[in-house]
Amino acid sequence: MLMTARQYEDSLRKLDLVVYMFGRRVENPVDDPIIRPSLNAVAKTYEMALEPGFEDIMTAVSHLSGETINRFTHIHQSTADLVKKTKMGRLLGAHTGCCFQRCVGMDALNALSIVTFDIDAKYDTEYNKRFLEYLSYVQENDLTCDGAMTDPKGDRSLPPHKQPDPDMFLRVVAEKKDGILVRGAKAHQTGAVNSHEIIVMPTIAMREEDRDYAVSFALPSDAAGITYIMGRQSCDTRKTEGDPLDVGNPFFGGHEALVVFDDVFVPWERLFLYKEYEFAGPLVESFASYHRQSYACKSGVGDVLIGAAQTIAEYNGVHKASHVRDKIIEMNHLNETLYCGSLACAAEGRRKPSGTWCVDTLLANVSKQNVTRFPYEIARLAQDIAGGLMVTLPSAADFNSPEVGRWLEKYYKGNSAASADNRFRILRLIENLTLGAAAVGYLTESMHGAGSPQAQRIMISRQANVPEKQKLAKRLSGIRIDEI
Amino acid sequence: MLMTARQYEDSLRKLDLVVYMFGRRVENPVDDPIIRPSLNAVAKTYEMALEPGFEDIMTAVSHLSGETINRFTHIHQSTADLVKKTKMGRLLGAHTGCCFQRCVGMDALNALSIVTFDIDAKYDTEYNKRFLEYLSYVQENDLTCDGAMTDPKGDRSLPPHKQPDPDMFLRVVAEKKDGILVRGAKAHQTGAVNSHEIIVMPTIAMREEDRDYAVSFALPSDAAGITYIMGRQSCDTRKTEGDPLDVGNPFFGGHEALVVFDDVFVPWERLFLYKEYEFAGPLVESFASYHRQSYACKSGVGDVLIGAAQTIAEYNGVHKASHVRDKIIEMNHLNETLYCGSLACAAEGRRKPSGTWCVDTLLANVSKQNVTRFPYEIARLAQDIAGGLMVTLPSAADFNSPEVGRWLEKYYKGNSAASADNRFRILRLIENLTLGAAAVGYLTESMHGAGSPQAQRIMISRQANVPEKQKLAKRLSGIRIDEI
Amino acid sequence: MLMTARQYEDSLRKLDLVVYMFGRRVENPVDDPIIRPSLNAVAKTYEMALEPGFEDIMTAVSHLSGETINRFTHIHQSTADLVKKTKMGRLLGAHTGCCFQRCVGMDALNALSIVTFDIDAKYDTEYNKRFLEYLSYVQENDLTCDGAMTDPKGDRSLPPHKQPDPDMFLRVVAEKKDGILVRGAKAHQTGAVNSHEIIVMPTIAMREEDRDYAVSFALPSDAAGITYIMGRQSCDTRKTEGDPLDVGNPFFGGHEALVVFDDVFVPWERLFLYKEYEFAGPLVESFASYHRQSYACKSGVGDVLIGAAQTIAEYNGVHKASHVRDKIIEMNHLNETLYCGSLACAAEGRRKPSGTWCVDTLLANVSKQNVTRFPYEIARLAQDIAGGLMVTLPSAADFNSPEVGRWLEKYYKGNSAASADNRFRILRLIENLTLGAAAVGYLTESMHGAGSPQAQRIMISRQANVPEKQKLAKRLSGIRIDEI
Amino acid sequence: MLMTARQYEDSLRKLDLVVYMFGRRVENPVDDPIIRPSLNAVAKTYEMALEPGFEDIMTAVSHLSGETINRFTHIHQSTADLVKKTKMGRLLGAHTGCCFQRCVGMDALNALSIVTFDIDAKYDTEYNKRFLEYLSYVQENDLTCDGAMTDPKGDRSLPPHKQPDPDMFLRVVAEKKDGILVRGAKAHQTGAVNSHEIIVMPTIAMREEDRDYAVSFALPSDAAGITYIMGRQSCDTRKTEGDPLDVGNPFFGGHEALVVFDDVFVPWERLFLYKEYEFAGPLVESFASYHRQSYACKSGVGDVLIGAAQTIAEYNGVHKASHVRDKIIEMNHLNETLYCGSLACAAEGRRKPSGTWCVDTLLANVSKQNVTRFPYEIARLAQDIAGGLMVTLPSAADFNSPEVGRWLEKYYKGNSAASADNRFRILRLIENLTLGAAAVGYLTESMHGAGSPQAQRIMISRQANVPEKQKLAKRLSGIRIDEI
Repeated sequence: MLMTARQYEDSLRKLDLVVYMFGRRVENPVDDPIIRPSLNAVAKTYEMALEPGFEDIMTAVSHLSGETINRFTHIHQSTADLVKKTKMGRLLGAHTGCCFQRCVGMDALNALSIVTFDIDAKYDTEYNKRFLEYLSYVQENDLTCDGAMTDPKGDRSLPPHKQPDPDMFLRVVAEKKDGILVRGAKAHQTGAVNSHEIIVMPTIAMREEDRDYAVSFALPSDAAGITYIMGRQSCDTRKTEGDPLDVGNPFFGGHEALVVFDDVFVPWERLFLYKEYEFAGPLVESFASYHRQSYACKSGVGDVLIGAAQTIAEYNGVHKASHVRDKIIEMNHLNETLYCGSLACAAEGRRKPSGTWCVDTLLANVSKQNVTRFPYEIARLAQDIAGGLMVTLPSAADFNSPEVGRWLEKYYKGNSAASADNRFRILRLIENLTLGAAAVGYLTESMHGAGSPQAQRIMISRQANVPEKQKLAKRLSGIRIDEI
Repeated sequence: MLMTARQYEDSLRKLDLVVYMFGRRVENPVDDPIIRPSLNAVAKTYEMALEPGFEDIMTAVSHLSGETINRFTHIHQSTADLVKKTKMGRLLGAHTGCCFQRCVGMDALNALSIVTFDIDAKYDTEYNKRFLEYLSYVQENDLTCDGAMTDPKGDRSLPPHKQPDPDMFLRVVAEKKDGILVRGAKAHQTGAVNSHEIIVMPTIAMREEDRDYAVSFALPSDAAGITYIMGRQSCDTRKTEGDPLDVGNPFFGGHEALVVFDDVFVPWERLFLYKEYEFAGPLVESFASYHRQSYACKSGVGDVLIGAAQTIAEYNGVHKASHVRDKIIEMNHLNETLYCGSLACAAEGRRKPSGTWCVDTLLANVSKQNVTRFPYEIARLAQDIAGGLMVTLPSAADFNSPEVGRWLEKYYKGNSAASADNRFRILRLIENLTLGAAAVGYLTESMHGAGSPQAQRIMISRQANVPEKQKLAKRLSGIRIDEI
Repeated sequence: MLMTARQYEDSLRKLDLVVYMFGRRVENPVDDPIIRPSLNAVAKTYEMALEPGFEDIMTAVSHLSGETINRFTHIHQSTADLVKKTKMGRLLGAHTGCCFQRCVGMDALNALSIVTFDIDAKYDTEYNKRFLEYLSYVQENDLTCDGAMTDPKGDRSLPPHKQPDPDMFLRVVAEKKDGILVRGAKAHQTGAVNSHEIIVMPTIAMREEDRDYAVSFALPSDAAGITYIMGRQSCDTRKTEGDPLDVGNPFFGGHEALVVFDDVFVPWERLFLYKEYEFAGPLVESFASYHRQSYACKSGVGDVLIGAAQTIAEYNGVHKASHVRDKIIEMNHLNETLYCGSLACAAEGRRKPSGTWCVDTLLANVSKQNVTRFPYEIARLAQDIAGGLMVTLPSAADFNSPEVGRWLEKYYKGNSAASADNRFRILRLIENLTLGAAAVGYLTESMHGAGSPQAQRIMISRQANVPEKQKLAKRLSGIRIDEI
Repeated sequence: MLMTARQYEDSLRKLDLVVYMFGRRVENPVDDPIIRPSLNAVAKTYEMALEPGFEDIMTAVSHLSGETINRFTHIHQSTADLVKKTKMGRLLGAHTGCCFQRCVGMDALNALSIVTFDIDAKYDTEYNKRFLEYLSYVQENDLTCDGAMTDPKGDRSLPPHKQPDPDMFLRVVAEKKDGILVRGAKAHQTGAVNSHEIIVMPTIAMREEDRDYAVSFALPSDAAGITYIMGRQSCDTRKTEGDPLDVGNPFFGGHEALVVFDDVFVPWERLFLYKEYEFAGPLVESFASYHRQSYACKSGVGDVLIGAAQTIAEYNGVHKASHVRDKIIEMNHLNETLYCGSLACAAEGRRKPSGTWCVDTLLANVSKQNVTRFPYEIARLAQDIAGGLMVTLPSAADFNSPEVGRWLEKYYKGNSAASADNRFRILRLIENLTLGAAAVGYLTESMHGAGSPQAQRIMISRQANVPEKQKLAKRLSGIRIDEI
């Protein structure tokens, strides 16, 4: 059953989340001016699924129920599904200009669909069955899930069980009759407060000594003992100033939170990995590959930034200058190169024993690696085209002031038919995307989300099959293959 | 019918080509030491089509005859075909370490399959029928075709009909009862001397005044009046010195030639475009898109260079140094990014009215644009890893000399179990790929083949749909869409 | 006479500036929490001039009075002076981590010392004498001057006199007995509100029709008719939240303002260019060259960012990872390359007829062009090293909260001996420099200050003497020099 | 006494060098067509020293004799001398378009002037006196010295004394009454065969166990027991084909050789370091800093390549295209950035205890690091502008052929007033610099000469004083300096 955006909002109102921001409990996250734009972005994933013309991209047919479901709750059944996932990411990035938060849950569901199957195959357990029941519940209710992986990690040179504070990785602290108690925290949780469910996964490959840390489960986001502490973003409080002009993108945004699990109870039926430590690595790797593909969304956000750059060039009257045109081309070139990477790892996807289709690991990592670079260059070019006014523009209040507003109208008029007001708006959007709240998602999250650059480089190193390439080189150079 | 490599060689011996090199007629191109490696590279496209394990990539089922044919003569019938074309390019690049020359004919055939259909649809002509008959002939005989597009162009600011010398673009000079006479030249013809057929296409979009230049046709490569003048390459004469050690890649290479048409006769049944000038542009654009995809081969050549770099790192004993490992990763990353581009434009291919599947134009151009950059950086990194010895290594003759050979053995031994001889070979291969004969293909051809970088930038500019992106940006910034 | 920082602050209190911010008049800019850090940065230029060990860099001997003066009021008398200017910029950038604003006045003074001399040489006027009297006043009172160049420019395709609104470039509107009236505005004025004086210069080369726009003069910053409208910066209001933790750099900052001249009176003795339109270009070019050199300050800010990156790497426990070390090296490499550029244009400086020493124009432009690129890459690397926590860190208020503060202490502790509090501080500093208030100066101002990138490219094109290089190439290729 | 170019040539004829190339003894290196262009390049250092207008750059006053000497034999007495050295390098690079080989001896002399003084200061030895006598001899006779540092190094993970073959680093094998015997080899010796003298230095820092390897001395290049084995270069044999057209730069070139020392006698008075192992490191570091500065020559070669690119753009008729103009600007920008680095490390030079002035170590390494990158990008841009014809151009013999020459004349004519012949020449020059013999010097030597990129990165890491930068960052972030 597909929810409308309104139904989604109402469903969030029913949650009893414990959220802190600026040192105070947020009683009503849904209507909080700082959180609200991030809710709007998730709501867009519901709205567009019902919008004519986007069904093919935004919805899918459940392999469980045969019903039409939101693609964010779908288990990929073909490379066509994977390719559509890439397109859905770009589409939503383009329509929100920010992180719409819902892909992380989709990626967690798909990774679990593979790994629970594999655990069962080894241990004759019932994780996959449990998982599919849970999946049905998510699909039927069109839920948004947070996929929670990143632990605080403490001393990074030590494995979980050797940390001075044993809680630096989330762990099992007790086993009860009907379930377990877990303690720990998950950092950088994108869209956590806009989620109905939270799906916890381990953050690294583990050995036997860390078996108490090898745990994966799902819980309602308002389960007892869970606390959310909101991360603050660049320019976050502009959203509370009352004038949308200074916000840049007044409609949409993202958020991250630290999620604390203070001895939280997890019933057995929601446990998908429990101490089978050797599957922590495969779960991480599978999730990471899917999530690295998901950064196709940044080419959608890039579309917005390119459009903004072209628009300010027109407002400034310089859009015909050859160097400006060339910079727009370069922005497009880089942006489409990102898109190529996400498409390619999808098109080269393969079926897993569980029946789930997974992206090509090597190309997903290559794609994400470019995401850690190109948005920064696209942003630099956007700032080049925008001109210095982007960072010296007075406030909306000055613009509206009876004393000085007329001077801003007079002196900040460009040479086109456009108003100073529109010039103002588009500059604030570029600021939003390159220095402001959306830069958190477009730049820094592009760097570290789904794994920092070095994580991809390690995977590229493992996957690139260099020994095979050495054989090619040796043969062509005339070295006998059996020689060193 | 698939030819063997030997049959291919024999078929070339039967041609009566007029070839000049170093100011002299080459009586026997097949056995010429400079040309031979390029023949070997084309022969590899025959050999691998018959090699078990490669059928799926190297062959296809003809949509005309239902027979198994070499994929180089195939008209793409699906995105799967396009994706396999990308993989075939990488495969052969990896197995030859050079340009194997046969893709240009494949791309010409596919472009003509689309455009002849479109001309017929407009003018009720029979070009497509002619073309399909010709295609059958090519498929049945497993022929190699040269796709000849680039005219000398003379004064680049003038259209063909305004050139001081009217022959600077190939043109119709007379119409006879059973055909026409053409005059002009095609420059930079890759593999021309290894081809059975030559397929001529116009090089730019044209207007009515240029209708005599709007001509496309196919001829046997040894048709009367055609002369080939070989281009020389860096280090070309090393192949004549007698010792394979200094050649780098003693087996394979590429070649380019200037092809002169001195009033050559073309029968009607071999004409595929004749003065329908408005189809010159679509033919160029269609061929260019296909051919920009074809540069997937460079990721195969990149595989060889990466393998060589890893090998010399091991021979030098520095392969465990973190900076060396990181450079190998970067080489792989860039190389796979190239591959992603070619895959993505294939996976996003679409069916044309003729039934032929064509790659996505925007992504094909984006992909080729990266090809004009990354091989240079991969080559730079290879030289970094190789060390200076790559360019200060004495000759093979010194190595074999009774006087000084022992010193080379002694002092050019690295720290591994490998011999100085093998170190020598792999260094010469890297030299070959980054400064020598193969650098012509891996670097300069990557820059200019299938269109110089600026050609792609113009296409990116046209295809990127920036106005749509402006709508996205304006909406998110709060500008009303109906406003400027 | 050198002022102390305290005396400087007191002198600002005596000014009667008309300043607007957030739509309201700022009655007391000196104590305003948003403006104050920028005052502190200027104050540092006074403080360090009196600090033992820095005299050689921070002070000079006046060529007028023979007295020790602050170097910011000095006219360069040698290449040694120019080199010390570069070092002063880096020193202050490193000690403030931001734009210290005072170089623009220094550069205006030096440019005027050259151009007033040249006008007099042509017209037998007394501009240089006037200027030197003004300079004595500035030196004796150790004043901070704003150098005001950038006009709003309106329709950028039109010269000043053809603008629909004639005020889009600052202009003479009336001539009085004892002076003139001017009207217009200057945008992006760095440190305007912290200045005692404002020195106005034209913003482009001009022709006779624009002679009313060819005007340069100096005025007290609180002259009647001048209004300042503060530009807002990323994260500006964090400075008003009361907790320095979230500010990143709680001590120092920069500011820019729009300065409006509403029919302001300028006495003759303060006019340095008056309708000698052909000297507008030389004045712009001379100022621009000096000011492009001044971006040596960014290598000082880069020092801070490198130091911060190394510190967070240590706090995160990853500073020994080879990729982290390599990124720190790359940051240093790029940062020192910036420094090389500024040093080189200084070392290659030449004496002008007025006796003033000016930097090498070509190298100053080359240096600034790198400034439009490298800080963005240094910032990207800093974000890479910092990790995602930089943008998901909760607020200082959360850190201090009795409910959730303990969790932040617990879970945001890294693996070193450092406290979570210090980790917090250094992350906020990196945020400040790469996304926050200081990013305005370190990134966007690096892009557009002293002219946008394309301005430098035009100058490089003009100065690079390509025809001479063509002679070299032709000679070596065997082309006769007298041939085309 | 300054020699003329002719006298230099004559002096070389008197040497009795043992030179091998292509497996045969070269009886007359001076007139060998492959070696000769490299002699011409060294001869240019003599010729220009006597050319009016270049005295200030090309000559200096000996601090020993007070006589005018060639700057290549001078010990730097001031930063002005260091800056002139940078300019001399660029000047000669621009006039030869290649490596002129003589700087390595100059850098060896200067490094020894410092280190011999320092050894004496510690051990009360007479190395500096010996050195100054040798220096007088070099200056008086205007000799060219090869500075020989790079040993074969064998297993790079082992120090000299642990190598399986003890000769992999040059070493003392016997002590005689009047001197010593040395054995080993020096690789990559630039200009060795054009030198009168060879100055040997150790290649790495050493410990006591390696004391037999800690040896520095000077010998006549034709001393008994020395053998030269020439390295081959890309396209080297084109010089023997008889037509200068295909050579690109028919006048000048470089060369490298392996120099073998087969138990060569060195008299005491020519020994400058003998087992004082702790001075091996300082000697290497001092030489390396000087030699990294020397790469200013590449900006001179860059001048030639830029001039060639502009010329071919004109011949092709595309020089007014905005993208071509922008690429020329970028080439100049990068080239001048290289120049800035060399200038900056010179301008920041400091006096050593010996009285010799040495460049700034950090900036010299930063400068060289850019040299390992920018020439590759400049070369790539040159190939972009040149077009594909650069690598598909037939041979000079074809051009001169009665059969096909007329077609090359006809079809390879561009659109300018220039002849096909001139177009041919300039394309071959670009090939020479980017793929041919000069690419060895402009690209690969830029990478590895004076130390490979990683060597500079290690030095940058050591010299950048990151702890001081951490203090700056901590202070600004509010961390107490005494805290971790």
